[in-house]
Amino acid sequence: MPQDVVALSPAADRESGLARHDKLELRVWLRLLTCANMIEGRVRAGLRETFDITLPRFDLLAQLDRAPDGLTMGELSDRLMVSNGNVTGLADRLVAEGLVSRATASHDRRRARLRLTPAGKRAFDVMTPVHERWVDDLLAGLDRTEMAALLDLLAKLKHSIRAASEAGAKPGDTS
Amino acid sequence: MPQDVVALSPAADRESGLARHDKLELRVWLRLLTCANMIEGRVRAGLRETFDITLPRFDLLAQLDRAPDGLTMGELSDRLMVSNGNVTGLADRLVAEGLVSRATASHDRRRARLRLTPAGKRAFDVMTPVHERWVDDLLAGLDRTEMAALLDLLAKLKHSIRAASEAGAKPGDTS
Repeated sequence: MPQDVVALSPAADRESGLARHDKLELRVWLRLLTCANMIEGRVRAGLRETFDITLPRFDLLAQLDRAPDGLTMGELSDRLMVSNGNVTGLADRLVAEGLVSRATASHDRRRARLRLTPAGKRAFDVMTPVHERWVDDLLAGLDRTEMAALLDLLAKLKHSIRAASEAGAKPGDTS
Repeated sequence: MPQDVVALSPAADRESGLARHDKLELRVWLRLLTCANMIEGRVRAGLRETFDITLPRFDLLAQLDRAPDGLTMGELSDRLMVSNGNVTGLADRLVAEGLVSRATASHDRRRARLRLTPAGKRAFDVMTPVHERWVDDLLAGLDRTEMAALLDLLAKLKHSIRAASEAGAKPGDTS
């Protein structure tokens, strides 16, 4: 692996040392994880260097931007990969900074809907095209047909993961 | 999304709210991230429930298992997505538990090679087939041809990400 890739992103090559004879399933999983880690590492670094914003904060703004009716803390916690406690902390800070508003109609704080404020929307709209350009650059080596094929295969994989979950093939079940 | 999937794993569906007209690149990236998060969430839960081991500890043992000559802290830090400090903490605990040994030939601690002890190898060998079965189950919805196609497309993607990195299209560069 070229040294600058390592230096730019701590994202690991999880396939390191994986033998040729290792199972196809394991190779797919580790290559998928490697790609996800590499992209996430570069997006994270870009957000920090360019906008001085953390990835979880950006992700929270992105989810709210896609939800015109706002989202509750529970919905945000489901959509982001963070615990309720972490979402609360993130949201509190964004509310304090005026980027996010919390509707106070309900006295149950968990059911209060969060929305982007106009200032939050403006801030996010500055970041969106730059973020998209990074993703475009990282995927530039694939043509449209390959991207469409990858999208289809990933849809199938997502369906497979859900089916395995629903079949009760719980990771905790070793039988 | 079925509730039990959410309950089993906090892994989010990062495509939530993504519009049909959103760019192909962004859709590929978010679907890739969703799949990686879902699989990782289930593997993490399985390791915790079945072997009472965290994912970073398992990953460290897995890397050492694949490196018969052992690995330095720096190599481990590169291969895992964790900082040097975190690797040191993880490794120290595994050494204290007798699962990992640290060669003391060098007086530079960072250059000392870590290896699995026989006890560490035995512990890891118990976990490996169970871990593989979870991954097999999660990918069971794809046949061999689809898995091979996915592996190829992900190889192309990995190459693309590296090429973008080397071309200096740094995320921090907004020009």
